[in-house]
Amino acid sequence: MHIREFQSMMRRIYFHRDSERGKDATYNWLLDEAEELREALKEQNVRGLEDEFADVLAWLASLANVVNIDLEKAALTKYNNICPKCQKARCECPFEQR
Amino acid sequence: MHIREFQSMMRRIYFHRDSERGKDATYNWLLDEAEELREALKEQNVRGLEDEFADVLAWLASLANVVNIDLEKAALTKYNNICPKCQKARCECPFEQR
Repeated sequence: MHIREFQSMMRRIYFHRDSERGKDATYNWLLDEAEELREALKEQNVRGLEDEFADVLAWLASLANVVNIDLEKAALTKYNNICPKCQKARCECPFEQR
Repeated sequence: MHIREFQSMMRRIYFHRDSERGKDATYNWLLDEAEELREALKEQNVRGLEDEFADVLAWLASLANVVNIDLEKAALTKYNNICPKCQKARCECPFEQR
């Protein structure tokens, strides 16, 4: 599924709620899900880990909907088959940079 | 672009670095980018906001590569045109739940 289609699906299911909640509270949910992902990374439960990755992506898409950002366009504008910093297809930046 | 293709692109550009850095440090970068997104949400700069959404998605894909999770499969297993909690195409969960 295209990134854009996933964002559209999140809009269909959740935008009536996401827009009412607003960007700050939606961001806080994203951060909560990121915290749950941190916990899941400590476990050996692949299904649980998949679940948390799904939630972080879902809330990122919800937040993008609230602030009217096209996540696919944003991602491909910055990451277009090369590292945006060193411009190489296989990143050669000093290791600290990323 | 499919979610899976984006993850593969991140793998081509960054996996040699992501795998060396490991899951904990890669997670910390994801969290740093989420913090930068929070700051960008306060500004009126659409391009800067797009940039931070791109980075959060990129680091989420990098982390998924490190722990060998298929982000697209994970997302579509959980979110398949209905809310996974209330099972409705337009979520009707009690507002606190999401």
